[in-house]
Amino acid sequence: MAAPPTRIGLAGLAVMGQNLALNIAEKGFPISVYNRTTSKVDETVERAKKEGNLPVFGFHDPESFVKSVQKPRVIIMLVKAGAPVDQTIKTLSAYLEKGDCIIDGGNEWYENTERREKAMAGLGLLYLGMGVSGGEEGARHGPSLMPGGSFEAYKNIEDILLKVAAQVSDSGPCVTYIGEGGSGNFVKMVHNGIEYGDMQLIAEAYDVLKSVGKLTNEELKKVFSEWNKGELLSFLIEITTDIFGIKDDKGDGYLVDKVLDKTGMKGTGKWTVQQAAELSVAAPTIASSLDSRFLSGLKEERVEAAKVFKSGGFGDILTDQVVNKEKLIDDVRQALYASKICSYAQGMNLIRAKSIEKGWGLKLGELARIWKGGCIIRAIFLDRIKKAYDRNPDLASLLVDPEFAKEIIDRQSAWRRVVTLAINSGISTPGMSISLAYFDTYRRGRLPANLVQAQRDYFGAHTYERTDMPGSFHTEWFKIANQTKN
Amino acid sequence: MAAPPTRIGLAGLAVMGQNLALNIAEKGFPISVYNRTTSKVDETVERAKKEGNLPVFGFHDPESFVKSVQKPRVIIMLVKAGAPVDQTIKTLSAYLEKGDCIIDGGNEWYENTERREKAMAGLGLLYLGMGVSGGEEGARHGPSLMPGGSFEAYKNIEDILLKVAAQVSDSGPCVTYIGEGGSGNFVKMVHNGIEYGDMQLIAEAYDVLKSVGKLTNEELKKVFSEWNKGELLSFLIEITTDIFGIKDDKGDGYLVDKVLDKTGMKGTGKWTVQQAAELSVAAPTIASSLDSRFLSGLKEERVEAAKVFKSGGFGDILTDQVVNKEKLIDDVRQALYASKICSYAQGMNLIRAKSIEKGWGLKLGELARIWKGGCIIRAIFLDRIKKAYDRNPDLASLLVDPEFAKEIIDRQSAWRRVVTLAINSGISTPGMSISLAYFDTYRRGRLPANLVQAQRDYFGAHTYERTDMPGSFHTEWFKIANQTKN
Repeated sequence: MAAPPTRIGLAGLAVMGQNLALNIAEKGFPISVYNRTTSKVDETVERAKKEGNLPVFGFHDPESFVKSVQKPRVIIMLVKAGAPVDQTIKTLSAYLEKGDCIIDGGNEWYENTERREKAMAGLGLLYLGMGVSGGEEGARHGPSLMPGGSFEAYKNIEDILLKVAAQVSDSGPCVTYIGEGGSGNFVKMVHNGIEYGDMQLIAEAYDVLKSVGKLTNEELKKVFSEWNKGELLSFLIEITTDIFGIKDDKGDGYLVDKVLDKTGMKGTGKWTVQQAAELSVAAPTIASSLDSRFLSGLKEERVEAAKVFKSGGFGDILTDQVVNKEKLIDDVRQALYASKICSYAQGMNLIRAKSIEKGWGLKLGELARIWKGGCIIRAIFLDRIKKAYDRNPDLASLLVDPEFAKEIIDRQSAWRRVVTLAINSGISTPGMSISLAYFDTYRRGRLPANLVQAQRDYFGAHTYERTDMPGSFHTEWFKIANQTKN
Repeated sequence: MAAPPTRIGLAGLAVMGQNLALNIAEKGFPISVYNRTTSKVDETVERAKKEGNLPVFGFHDPESFVKSVQKPRVIIMLVKAGAPVDQTIKTLSAYLEKGDCIIDGGNEWYENTERREKAMAGLGLLYLGMGVSGGEEGARHGPSLMPGGSFEAYKNIEDILLKVAAQVSDSGPCVTYIGEGGSGNFVKMVHNGIEYGDMQLIAEAYDVLKSVGKLTNEELKKVFSEWNKGELLSFLIEITTDIFGIKDDKGDGYLVDKVLDKTGMKGTGKWTVQQAAELSVAAPTIASSLDSRFLSGLKEERVEAAKVFKSGGFGDILTDQVVNKEKLIDDVRQALYASKICSYAQGMNLIRAKSIEKGWGLKLGELARIWKGGCIIRAIFLDRIKKAYDRNPDLASLLVDPEFAKEIIDRQSAWRRVVTLAINSGISTPGMSISLAYFDTYRRGRLPANLVQAQRDYFGAHTYERTDMPGSFHTEWFKIANQTKN
């Protein structure tokens, strides 16, 4: 095995870091690794040996670690977002030289990346904030990579990233230079928001099929397995299929039924929702998935609430509706797909709004392309999105792309059937419901917002526009109404 | 008329400021007024003469303005939030002395108030951030006041605020000391978020009645007038009744039909949604009202989208459903009321979450009391909320208060009918739909969140809890699934 200087370094050897280091080494790039807790260094080197004598070189101190990398040096950090990143930068930059580069591979808030990029530039150092999606498996065998920041730094390691990223046969490696500043982190953040939405919509499909359709786990596994052969083919549908098949190793039955209905979260979904509000972009499907996680966390309150309403004569399921299982399954598939279009339309429009605000010039079709493989939301569906933006890069919304519009029209009856069935069954489908409301709002030329604006002008003199002439108007509604009364 | 020293000063004489100054003077407190554009000062003094020789004293320079007020001085600012507030503080504080106080009456971000309170304290000055609701009319004749910050400062002007605020016969003046720091601004912010929700829900009721029920403006006026005699009695229903009766002065028909369906906004709704996400509180009804404003703003896009779907064979209204008008009106009233309970439950829980985080010790029932009069959301409904918190100050949610729970149970069938009718008619009722989903989520002891958590553990090793034993678990889902496959 070649001795250092190595081609690249990686600091932060939790599972994601270890796996990404092994992936890089496996693609033929000798890599130096470092971790503050040094046992992780030895563990990584040990794994490198076991997994094929990969060229991974371990270091127990930051100085020899940094100096072992060839110039201009590139060091990827995979540490917790926030203060640990600042600490690691401080440690590493003491030994870095002009033209060297640090890459943050964590889920960092994009503004932190922009602040650090500026500070690094002051020292003559380059910086990238690179979203890495795909979980542990992706990191090891091919993630989707979203590097943003210094283009010069990107060019220095493009050859590595192109090999390390997931490879999709018809569209290449799942990496592209995203754009300047914090754009890589921002795009990864929205990716995660979309991931929240996908997971929520799948959970709702599961809920309707299980609670209303009375499908067993075996039946659910079969349904999801079928779905994974068609338009819904995706990593999340695939793992859901797996989940339904796994027996409880601590008791009878299936494990999924024993998992507590409390969902954790790590911040990117929250940021997505906050940024949507900041940028005046409606992203209700993604927001509903965040809210569902919040409400899932109130397990004890929900159990109490269920008792209150039960004792009030109102049970968990309103009716034992007779449903045609096959028809229901087909309807739910269509409702899930149509809702998914809405969710991605929201996420894409959010990215575009930010890109315009920051002047990033992001290419939405290219983002869809690099999400086709490696990442958690990878799906055949993303190819359709890529093609929609290929057809029209200035598409106002995925909803009005001719192909997607047709798909929605074909599915809207089933979609309405599922949501109304859920409502009449006392099942909540917040994601599907609000996606449908989003669609029914966006496609209406005339909304009841005229009344809201009239109210605002009534009590706050906020003025209004008219449908039939240009200009800004104010009416003394109160005065006129009271003249009429007298 | 008594010469200065006056009892209090007011700087910033746009309509809100003028009206509040006149209100204060009318209650017997001589007031000094100042504005950078001095014509506004003369205008205010002129109005004071006309509206009953009220003791309003105008000043054209800040020094003589400040010095005209008796010590310890209290000066209310009513200027635009942000930089203008900082500028005004700078101008005024040059002449203030230890123990004097500035009150910001604008819709300020609560953290700005906390920053300023600290800076002022460094100069020996007191500071209050005071939410003022009620629009121009409220400011003139009795607003709802939400002062937060220095308790000492509050005590110095409590006698004024108690008289200036709206008076409600059975519960007193609509003012209370909210709490420390930026609590007054925060509570006002959530008040505005709730106001967004109310307006959205009313707009949806209007939409269903007009688009599905085919009610004319005359009929709508009659319906809202009736509603304003019952459980929905409120300022917003009252002004909506007025709006439906006003003829277009520039053409035929009713003015409301000529108002463009584009809704403006000023920031407090956005902040409410962002804070809800920050504090892990689901506030989907309020969020849906914000999203509806965003989507209303995309008028040109919506008109284009309507064409796309129309040409795809999908028109504006799916079906010409035959509806029983009387039944529909009654159903819509119930759906509106039930959704309103959800919206207020969200707002109250948001305030409580912040109060806990900041240690403000806010009393939710007391907030409901001061919203009973003066402000935009004033309603008979708020008395029920006050009573719910009187019964149980630690109520987990308004939804589980016995009275509200009963009201929801009584109305849930009508609520479901309205939302499903809207869905089947292609009408979007995002606020009512997501309120219902919120209710149906909160009252369920078991949600499909188990699947989401299983997915998270599958791809990210995020661990899960179990329903049947304590502890944190991780399963090698992928490995097990693939063993099964082989």
